[in-house]
Amino acid sequence: MRRTLAWKVALAVGAGLLIVLAVPGIASADSLEAFNNEVLPDSVGFNSMWVIVAAMVVMFMQAGFAFLEIGFSRQKNAGTVVAKILTNFSIAAVCWYFVGFALAFGSEPSGLGGLVGGTGFLLQNFGDPTTGFPVMGLSNATVESKFFFQFVFCAVSLAIVWGTTLERIKFGVYVIYAIIFASIIYPIGAHWVFGGGFLQTGDWLGTGIAGMQDFAGSTAVHLIGATGALAALLLLGPRKGKYGGDGKPRAIPGHNMPLFGLGVLILWLGWFGFNGGTALNIQDGRFPEIIIITNIAAGCGVLGSLLMTYLKTRSLDIGMAGNGAIGALVGITAPSGYVELWAALPIGLIAGIIVPLGIYAIDKKLDDPVGALTAHGLCGIWGTLSCGFFTSPRLAQYNAFGNPDGGLLYSGSPSQLIAQAVGFTVAFSFVFVMSFATFWAIKKTYGLRVTDEEEDAGLDISEHGMYGYPEQFIPPAELIGYGGGPSTTVPPAPVTAMEAKPKEMPV
Amino acid sequence: MRRTLAWKVALAVGAGLLIVLAVPGIASADSLEAFNNEVLPDSVGFNSMWVIVAAMVVMFMQAGFAFLEIGFSRQKNAGTVVAKILTNFSIAAVCWYFVGFALAFGSEPSGLGGLVGGTGFLLQNFGDPTTGFPVMGLSNATVESKFFFQFVFCAVSLAIVWGTTLERIKFGVYVIYAIIFASIIYPIGAHWVFGGGFLQTGDWLGTGIAGMQDFAGSTAVHLIGATGALAALLLLGPRKGKYGGDGKPRAIPGHNMPLFGLGVLILWLGWFGFNGGTALNIQDGRFPEIIIITNIAAGCGVLGSLLMTYLKTRSLDIGMAGNGAIGALVGITAPSGYVELWAALPIGLIAGIIVPLGIYAIDKKLDDPVGALTAHGLCGIWGTLSCGFFTSPRLAQYNAFGNPDGGLLYSGSPSQLIAQAVGFTVAFSFVFVMSFATFWAIKKTYGLRVTDEEEDAGLDISEHGMYGYPEQFIPPAELIGYGGGPSTTVPPAPVTAMEAKPKEMPV
Amino acid sequence: MRRTLAWKVALAVGAGLLIVLAVPGIASADSLEAFNNEVLPDSVGFNSMWVIVAAMVVMFMQAGFAFLEIGFSRQKNAGTVVAKILTNFSIAAVCWYFVGFALAFGSEPSGLGGLVGGTGFLLQNFGDPTTGFPVMGLSNATVESKFFFQFVFCAVSLAIVWGTTLERIKFGVYVIYAIIFASIIYPIGAHWVFGGGFLQTGDWLGTGIAGMQDFAGSTAVHLIGATGALAALLLLGPRKGKYGGDGKPRAIPGHNMPLFGLGVLILWLGWFGFNGGTALNIQDGRFPEIIIITNIAAGCGVLGSLLMTYLKTRSLDIGMAGNGAIGALVGITAPSGYVELWAALPIGLIAGIIVPLGIYAIDKKLDDPVGALTAHGLCGIWGTLSCGFFTSPRLAQYNAFGNPDGGLLYSGSPSQLIAQAVGFTVAFSFVFVMSFATFWAIKKTYGLRVTDEEEDAGLDISEHGMYGYPEQFIPPAELIGYGGGPSTTVPPAPVTAMEAKPKEMPV
Repeated sequence: MRRTLAWKVALAVGAGLLIVLAVPGIASADSLEAFNNEVLPDSVGFNSMWVIVAAMVVMFMQAGFAFLEIGFSRQKNAGTVVAKILTNFSIAAVCWYFVGFALAFGSEPSGLGGLVGGTGFLLQNFGDPTTGFPVMGLSNATVESKFFFQFVFCAVSLAIVWGTTLERIKFGVYVIYAIIFASIIYPIGAHWVFGGGFLQTGDWLGTGIAGMQDFAGSTAVHLIGATGALAALLLLGPRKGKYGGDGKPRAIPGHNMPLFGLGVLILWLGWFGFNGGTALNIQDGRFPEIIIITNIAAGCGVLGSLLMTYLKTRSLDIGMAGNGAIGALVGITAPSGYVELWAALPIGLIAGIIVPLGIYAIDKKLDDPVGALTAHGLCGIWGTLSCGFFTSPRLAQYNAFGNPDGGLLYSGSPSQLIAQAVGFTVAFSFVFVMSFATFWAIKKTYGLRVTDEEEDAGLDISEHGMYGYPEQFIPPAELIGYGGGPSTTVPPAPVTAMEAKPKEMPV
Repeated sequence: MRRTLAWKVALAVGAGLLIVLAVPGIASADSLEAFNNEVLPDSVGFNSMWVIVAAMVVMFMQAGFAFLEIGFSRQKNAGTVVAKILTNFSIAAVCWYFVGFALAFGSEPSGLGGLVGGTGFLLQNFGDPTTGFPVMGLSNATVESKFFFQFVFCAVSLAIVWGTTLERIKFGVYVIYAIIFASIIYPIGAHWVFGGGFLQTGDWLGTGIAGMQDFAGSTAVHLIGATGALAALLLLGPRKGKYGGDGKPRAIPGHNMPLFGLGVLILWLGWFGFNGGTALNIQDGRFPEIIIITNIAAGCGVLGSLLMTYLKTRSLDIGMAGNGAIGALVGITAPSGYVELWAALPIGLIAGIIVPLGIYAIDKKLDDPVGALTAHGLCGIWGTLSCGFFTSPRLAQYNAFGNPDGGLLYSGSPSQLIAQAVGFTVAFSFVFVMSFATFWAIKKTYGLRVTDEEEDAGLDISEHGMYGYPEQFIPPAELIGYGGGPSTTVPPAPVTAMEAKPKEMPV
Repeated sequence: MRRTLAWKVALAVGAGLLIVLAVPGIASADSLEAFNNEVLPDSVGFNSMWVIVAAMVVMFMQAGFAFLEIGFSRQKNAGTVVAKILTNFSIAAVCWYFVGFALAFGSEPSGLGGLVGGTGFLLQNFGDPTTGFPVMGLSNATVESKFFFQFVFCAVSLAIVWGTTLERIKFGVYVIYAIIFASIIYPIGAHWVFGGGFLQTGDWLGTGIAGMQDFAGSTAVHLIGATGALAALLLLGPRKGKYGGDGKPRAIPGHNMPLFGLGVLILWLGWFGFNGGTALNIQDGRFPEIIIITNIAAGCGVLGSLLMTYLKTRSLDIGMAGNGAIGALVGITAPSGYVELWAALPIGLIAGIIVPLGIYAIDKKLDDPVGALTAHGLCGIWGTLSCGFFTSPRLAQYNAFGNPDGGLLYSGSPSQLIAQAVGFTVAFSFVFVMSFATFWAIKKTYGLRVTDEEEDAGLDISEHGMYGYPEQFIPPAELIGYGGGPSTTVPPAPVTAMEAKPKEMPV
């Protein structure tokens, strides 16, 4: 009976999609044809190759975020991260295709004043047919390569949202917010900052404020993600036991520092694609320098964070080493395309110093298990501001937005710094309001948080009916036939955490 | 005494190889010279770069398969997967060099009618010296880049074979079957489907059947691998305890969902190389679109699988989320180069829906611990058939094989669908017969399966004399000097599982 | 109070760096300008792309080394590897920027006779302004891409040093030696071997010895790293319990073979960048052949190692399978650019055979937990010597260094073999003396080794005040508030291993 229903629903969904898509799809099947099936100019080919390769390592950052979060979770909450990251990435892929890319990088309907893009839905009719490559208009690569590169950025931003919510959020919240984030919040925010919107072009409403500079997204990707995280956290509250009767925070150690380290190294690798790929071409020769700027900044971040952590605690915290790298990589994201190589040292070092200071300070009131508010939030702000200090005139002029005389250190003028401050404030405000409203609505209806009992049992068993590490929880004699796993033939009765829990919860 | 023997054998093998290879090797040392040591046309260089980069991420899919399998194994059987994957990949590398590439992609001896290639053994004399790039004849890249790209495909297909056999197969079986698979079974099957063989060219024996379309190998790689897996499974039988006295299947949960997730994400990444690299050039501008088709299909697979799993079981199975991605990636492999972007949605969604339905159905009778029969087998069939529905005329014409009017949705003709159905049936039949015969012969001589006692102890200790996770099995006081590990100086006495087992087996 | 101090120190460091760098940095901000912000010749762009992509996968080898070491460590010493690898890589990044690149690949001050480079500090003034690309002078790619590629080589060499020292070394030793290694030892050694120094050019001091051939660094990277490892080990001594009262070695099994396998597969992938990227261009068409040579050699290494291990011990050691791959990859590193494809078989096979023989032999006296002395040391020597046998004349001539008639098998002359033997001996001697002196000085001052009590407790808790796997050590009831982790708000009192240890040490 239920099986029949399941079939019906699935078939209906499939058939509906087929009809909705097939007709316009077939009708406009040749919309991309002009750019395919012929020998393109070589430069389009190899620029696109670089963009695609960069996008591929940025896509792999999903594994980086997953393992950073897994490492910082207790083992009863590790498996859910896998399901979460797959689901989020998948939702984002579909939403980006339907609307996200168009809102973020499509051409503007006239008169909107830099608020939102409006062409390229379903990656069709993406702009001016005379030039052929209107979307984004930045470089000489295929629109599909830009679509994919910008999609993985959106997915990174979404992944950042969830670090603060580990170990207590309901799985369904991921689904709902991901749709809104990837369809609306991120695309609009990204459009403003680096999709040709009003923050990028500057002088909006005649204010005379310079264009904001955010090369690869310290604000557009990282701060936006961290802002969503903050909104979620304020409504979600801390994990059970995080704050004692005296209100003082207590450490809840993550279960696996090696996997945390894997996450950090994957993210570090991914950032070469993140920043280097943002050049969107290889012909201006910028990408190798951007990559070494990125790498040196990350190194300084590790060293700055460990130094400061040691000064404060006399220990060399493994998590702080990794978060120092992440914080510095976030920090160098905005300036990497606008500063000289030497500036990687102060930008990275300061970001690294911010990491332990921010994490210790925030932890007093807010339970952010992975330190995302600091690494992506505070360091995103620092990275955005750092352009105001360090942007080099030659690169400012090349950029065609912002103050052509460069940052404060070169120009003596705070013009760029003001643009940066205004920029991240506007982006933060927009994303915070939108996200808080979304999470508030979810809280009032579906609910944000699992029950106390489920939190004690862990999200793996309560949300998925299985353990991430079964042999750490189930006695060997009971392992076979336990339930869950990929080969449960008999559809189990609806699983509640309580039914699924083994007799004695070890944790 | 034994040491002397070991030396003798090793030296004899080494010396023999040296003699066998050095003479012709030195004699024809310049066989590749024409393509080296000079400045090639730029396009050969950057097309080759893309092929090599794509091949590199496909090679990394070995880690993906390893961790997918490790995650779905119990911890007593996790270490052996590492030895297996290294051994298999290595055997395939040598076999592909000696014969595989030649049989799969060499020029045909005249009169064979599309049955098998016959030039390019040892990557020498690989074809028509006038054109320089005869092997495969598809594009403008060096033959060495194609050799490597096609090798990693063979290795992926081989890796797929073993998922069904986890936790009970003898290690030596891997070795024997890998030699036959990488030398004969895969090369011939791949030749037929996408190496210029009779299934690809169509109209064989005057049947008038259209050429089969299998862009990157839903049949040629995934179904072939899954067919080998089915043959092995039928002869091997289920794991102990899988089916209760009542004949009903019982879940045997894998030990590590985070590592399973790592595997899935690595595979997802690898598939961009798998499908995108199959363009074998960047100049036709196809590869970015192929990659976004691949990505959107995978996302739909996750969503489809989770939706159907939830409808059937009211839980969000972590393994099903991952297998939904794999199934959809397998499904989009054949059509990715032939369909429009929108078709990624139905193809991926349906593949995702197939995943839980197939896994639950198969699990009633066959013990496939990772779901490979479904993800690579059923979804491979679906992907192959989907070309019959969705192939776009512009791409069908570009392809030069198959029905130039495209799939059923465009042409209204079942011509392509028939070619697809015939194609996978022929490929399946060939591989099944060859594989079943091979495994049958192994079973009758060497044996396929470890003893009951060894299965209880786990393959790590019984096949390798060591544990994958020693500290989960050995009390701390006994850990040092336990035996095994990389630094056992004194060659231990021949290890039997029983000797090596610690006093009390915890599992 | 302490907080104030911390702030002051950090601010002083930051401000100091700013001042030191900003003045010359701004003054010479346009030093790279000539190569930026304009459309470069396409070939510079795509050659640089290949170099950068190759460098990215080589960078990821850091994760490979980390997980190889983590897998071979006990679980009480797994987390520190993460902190170590991040710290080392970061230090190397800064040192390479300040001095390493200049010493290794800068132009020589006249009269030095191939001893050390002298231009390009801070990646400025890097050579002859008329040609534009003087540093290294090998190919048609941007200097920044070469900088990054050569940096990741330095970082690999440094990572190799530490495998022998696992589970007992003080964390501070990493910091001190890394500075000296990345600033002086590696750059000078690499300059001699493949940076244009006297070993590469040959005929130094009129000796008439041919130029050394070391394509990607069997000596320059791997043997140098292993030599540092040997120096450290001799002064550090074995782990507690490694040698029994009878002086016989006892196995100390690593805790996680799956993660070891992950490390091996990442390294294998990285080697395609390592060797293939060393072509430093794509236009000569060499890189795909180099990559298949690399892959086939690695495969033969696995098979050779498993065969020899089985002959000696009748077991298929998982670690030996992985180290067989590593050893063969090290072995093929020097010859990969100079030999024909067939030579990959004997070179890889012999390297694989060396692995178990070397590991068993060395283990009798020296406690090398990961087998680095064999895999990077002995196999590095074998790889270096193998050029003396197998170098092909066409490639020898192309190379412009070394004996133009090729190795012994082609030329019948031992000339190249002698150059190789002299080369690795000189490099080994230099690095050993420098490293031994450094470690000796550290031992006499700061100390090399943790206390016995700390070694028993494990480095995670004793050096970092936290566990890598807390839930393996801490009872659930005590987990929250345990201390350590990323969100310890209250700076804990200075952690000593003894305070931090839980009441009952399980290991």
